[in-house]
Amino acid sequence: MVAEILCVGTELLLGDIVNTNAAYLSKQLAALGIDVYHQSVVGDNQGRLRDSLKNAFSRADIVIMTGGLGPTYDDLTKETVAEYFSLPMELHEESKKRMLEYFARRGTTPTPNNLKQALMPAGAVVFENDTGTAPGLAVEKDGKVAVLMPGPPFEMQAMFEGSVRPWLLKFSDKVLVSRTVHIAGIGESAVEHRLKDMMLAHTNPTVAPYAKQGEVQLRVTAAAKTREEAYAMTLPVLEEIREAVGEYIYGIDVGTQENAAVSLLREKRLWIATAESCSGGLLSKRITDIPGASEVFRLGVCAYADAMKVKVLGVGQDTLDRVGAVSEEVAAEMAAGVRRLAGADIGVGITGIAGPSGGTEEKPVGLIYVAVDSERYRAVEKYLPAHRQGGGRDHLRYMATQMALRMVLRALKEY
Amino acid sequence: MVAEILCVGTELLLGDIVNTNAAYLSKQLAALGIDVYHQSVVGDNQGRLRDSLKNAFSRADIVIMTGGLGPTYDDLTKETVAEYFSLPMELHEESKKRMLEYFARRGTTPTPNNLKQALMPAGAVVFENDTGTAPGLAVEKDGKVAVLMPGPPFEMQAMFEGSVRPWLLKFSDKVLVSRTVHIAGIGESAVEHRLKDMMLAHTNPTVAPYAKQGEVQLRVTAAAKTREEAYAMTLPVLEEIREAVGEYIYGIDVGTQENAAVSLLREKRLWIATAESCSGGLLSKRITDIPGASEVFRLGVCAYADAMKVKVLGVGQDTLDRVGAVSEEVAAEMAAGVRRLAGADIGVGITGIAGPSGGTEEKPVGLIYVAVDSERYRAVEKYLPAHRQGGGRDHLRYMATQMALRMVLRALKEY
Repeated sequence: MVAEILCVGTELLLGDIVNTNAAYLSKQLAALGIDVYHQSVVGDNQGRLRDSLKNAFSRADIVIMTGGLGPTYDDLTKETVAEYFSLPMELHEESKKRMLEYFARRGTTPTPNNLKQALMPAGAVVFENDTGTAPGLAVEKDGKVAVLMPGPPFEMQAMFEGSVRPWLLKFSDKVLVSRTVHIAGIGESAVEHRLKDMMLAHTNPTVAPYAKQGEVQLRVTAAAKTREEAYAMTLPVLEEIREAVGEYIYGIDVGTQENAAVSLLREKRLWIATAESCSGGLLSKRITDIPGASEVFRLGVCAYADAMKVKVLGVGQDTLDRVGAVSEEVAAEMAAGVRRLAGADIGVGITGIAGPSGGTEEKPVGLIYVAVDSERYRAVEKYLPAHRQGGGRDHLRYMATQMALRMVLRALKEY
Repeated sequence: MVAEILCVGTELLLGDIVNTNAAYLSKQLAALGIDVYHQSVVGDNQGRLRDSLKNAFSRADIVIMTGGLGPTYDDLTKETVAEYFSLPMELHEESKKRMLEYFARRGTTPTPNNLKQALMPAGAVVFENDTGTAPGLAVEKDGKVAVLMPGPPFEMQAMFEGSVRPWLLKFSDKVLVSRTVHIAGIGESAVEHRLKDMMLAHTNPTVAPYAKQGEVQLRVTAAAKTREEAYAMTLPVLEEIREAVGEYIYGIDVGTQENAAVSLLREKRLWIATAESCSGGLLSKRITDIPGASEVFRLGVCAYADAMKVKVLGVGQDTLDRVGAVSEEVAAEMAAGVRRLAGADIGVGITGIAGPSGGTEEKPVGLIYVAVDSERYRAVEKYLPAHRQGGGRDHLRYMATQMALRMVLRALKEY
């Protein structure tokens, strides 16, 4: 079964928003064993939407669409799909009723254009929207299937998980199991150099490398009739990878580093606290992205000004005077200071120059120090990108938190 | 001139990464007056890549591609483009020299597959890569143009800005000017209801609404021969919009709210400090995303545990006992506390329940209080989404910071 993702919205073509829907849906469909060979984006233009739909159905059996279900005049996805399948539009009473209830609950009344959202191609399967006003739908005819969901990511995801995934299960004839090997401290081309023959030799499972910011992942994907069978097929391949690059592997299927860190901290019943300067709170944000972080995370201090490093974190004024804020010593004192302040088991300190300005010959933009302080593990590491400006402010800030999380994972091995 | 964006990479089709490149390039091309009607994604598969390239050239004059220029065996973009234009591949000496220098600087040596990155279709214009190893290129033949850039976003963006944009200028025959009207406190369909006739009537400038998380934007876009002419054409339309929804407009072309807040704080020489609970540092992260934030931002405290609210921010233990952490009072005490601790002009406090668990009947998931404390403006606002779970943890955390920034912008009007 081959599916294609077609996202509708001029705001995507203007670059006003990033297409997270395509990534989300691709991941979900892969897990269902439904292949995706193409993702496309087209604007709110009926002619081009019609052509794109035709084009998609020339290559795929299922077209999963997002966007264009809103109340405004340029929302045309449903109408175009109805036309493609030669179906009339009809009022869907249940959807109308739900919409009126929704507005009543908010104490407002729908504008006339809201009611357009209750019109459906005849015979469509309608998916309720628990987080917004536009219902989703599926149309199935002559072996072709169109699934339509709203564009806002949180509405689409809630609908996919609640209604669309269960409905799609009937189209899946195999199960895919993917295992991800997380590798740090070695570049993508070096990984591939060591594993090239193996990657070419295997077709099921497949082995593919992905360079992420600050790490490399190897994805091992097996297809089989059952989940158990597919899982078992991945095991010997993982063993081969371990033999080739074992010293650089920091985990298998550990998700993001923050995910891995929070679950280990929970498991070991340890508290963590963070002190940040250049990364501006991104580390505490990444840790608290994980539900349940409140069981392991107590305090994050973003001491952007030097005076705050002294006052709140207890960094020595003499240290600052002697070696400056961007230094091994200050990173270590920040980590120890926030650990003490929060009464935590592990403290992290990050200080650096994220740019674009503020760099000097001696301390260029991109120079970052990360410290971890705990009873059993204490270390400071330096990051300095090979490239001038190091890929920009956002990238540098992200890399600082990547390094911090990697060091936290290392510290956790001691507990 | 019509361009199409074609991103190459199986990791995109598997949903392992989000396609930020398409959004970035769309925005850049729009600003150059080059229309984009389609974005496509295809995997590292030569047959499908060939078909997608043909398909793209059937609809566009310029195809802008990213990805597939890496050193590994499945990087095939250059080879496929060479084949499409019937051009042989040749070693590009300058690129080879630069690559050897790059590895020497890092103290490593290239693996043999790295050198594949120096092979180019004959006659290609080569764009240097200042932040990675894969050069970009452009091939122009028979009125069709292919531009190829590396996939990693920071490499691609640096190359686009440094080399590709200047090179593309020759294809642009008009200038687009876009003005963005930022609206808060009214929904998208209500905005559209008030402005529908106007949006339909105008074709140049066009007027289009975009619902963002927690705000609505109206984008007014004019096309003309010169920037001045296009700019002037937007003015009467902005005036019409002001007449229709003026009371909800909080700015024109103010960029993101954090951008607007940081520039106003700089202009008025004020210091801000943040105290966060449920938002986990996201507000300090958003403020420090803006270069130059160090001139206005001193301290952010993420007091995730109640004990930290008391110890670091000076929130009253009695207040916590009496009304609980998620309350108007605690939000206000957090804002005042961090302002005092940092010696700042404006303090912000955020407390709430981001979920997925932790909600009660009385204080459900999604309940958030935001407080701003300053000499001239002091307020606490409550947020409670209409939907159960309110769109999920990430969305709620984001909405909390949206509300906080909106209140900070309001406070700044008093200075």
